Amino acid sequence: MSRPLLQLALDHTSLAAARRDVALLQDHVDIVEAGTILCLSEGLNAVRALRAQCPEKIIVADWKVADAGETLAQQALGAGANWMTIICAAPLATIEKGHAVAQAHNGEIQIELFGNWTFDDARDWYRIGVRQAIYHRGRDAQASGQQWGEADLARMKALSDIGLELSVTGGLQPADLPLFKDINVKAFIAGRALSGAADPAQTASDFHAQIRAIWGDN
Amino acid sequence: MSRPLLQLALDHTSLAAARRDVALLQDHVDIVEAGTILCLSEGLNAVRALRAQCPEKIIVADWKVADAGETLAQQALGAGANWMTIICAAPLATIEKGHAVAQAHNGEIQIELFGNWTFDDARDWYRIGVRQAIYHRGRDAQASGQQWGEADLARMKALSDIGLELSVTGGLQPADLPLFKDINVKAFIAGRALSGAADPAQTASDFHAQIRAIWGDN
Repeated sequence: MSRPLLQLALDHTSLAAARRDVALLQDHVDIVEAGTILCLSEGLNAVRALRAQCPEKIIVADWKVADAGETLAQQALGAGANWMTIICAAPLATIEKGHAVAQAHNGEIQIELFGNWTFDDARDWYRIGVRQAIYHRGRDAQASGQQWGEADLARMKALSDIGLELSVTGGLQPADLPLFKDINVKAFIAGRALSGAADPAQTASDFHAQIRAIWGDN
Repeated sequence: MSRPLLQLALDHTSLAAARRDVALLQDHVDIVEAGTILCLSEGLNAVRALRAQCPEKIIVADWKVADAGETLAQQALGAGANWMTIICAAPLATIEKGHAVAQAHNGEIQIELFGNWTFDDARDWYRIGVRQAIYHRGRDAQASGQQWGEADLARMKALSDIGLELSVTGGLQPADLPLFKDINVKAFIAGRALSGAADPAQTASDFHAQIRAIWGDN
């Protein structure tokens, strides 16, 4: 298992505010995510501006695409994103088309897991070439009190066993990371846990220290 | 059953191109939809520009929201949308929050049906106050040959019976409309079938003539 990366999620409604957080944190994270709220507010300029600000980082367009996989992947990857998210509810044809465009850009598709997906779906995603999925406690689910539990961890382990690398998100703090030690984690995603911290760079460093403590230094 | 409306979907990557189609067609449709592709390309400006161009029309922000229902509904309805779409895979908490904001703006939420939703989900949506859903043949599903079939129509009828009004979309032509005569249709949604027609206003008129022939003049 490779060492998980740290992803900064930008869910601002304003690109200027997002860029301020990127300036604070880009040297302390591996991946910068143009979040859904930011992208719906600012459009493709959000992806372009983050690519310009972070030429060396992995950029994710968190678009949660449900249809028109080819056109949207062309837009996202063409604007400089490396990875684009597709919602699990999307037809397999949408995922296949998005994946083909992403591959042509040396990029990747990540499947966002919400609602009633199945392990058969997950095997289909793997079969057509997708290698990443995102496991959430959604913002609204968190606010309504949903915790990380054994059921989540068992589902994550089963997805790992199918061959999918998982990015994990939803109110994560450094102290939560040992929960995921048996999972094939691609990245831990944090938004306000990083940018809203009293000392954002120190909090990023705490995440990395935990990651190294659990997954090793290599 | 009230007479279905006609909705123009704008799935352009450029706002200028979308506005040209609106200029051609806005007097011939009831609802103007800022499509997902347009919104991810142009951001909230797409919704604002369509509201400015069509002050009297129902505007839909087709955002297929999966999380952050409150923030996104505030953005969409605050920018002038009347209706906002939420993907069926979203947690019920997301839908409740979006619905509350929409109500405060005298607006509505529409649930986009993709993937593995259930009739229990649909009853939950109805219970919390949602009254609209959107039934698709997705663009990619159409391209891979999926037709409207008995299974679709039976599911639509069951959703109607739960109390949801349905907007129907996916490569619709005027000749397809009799298929839906037993369904509680809120709107028929057409994009390129209208804007790509040889005579867009005439095609819109053909849709309206079919709607009146099936659902009556009132």
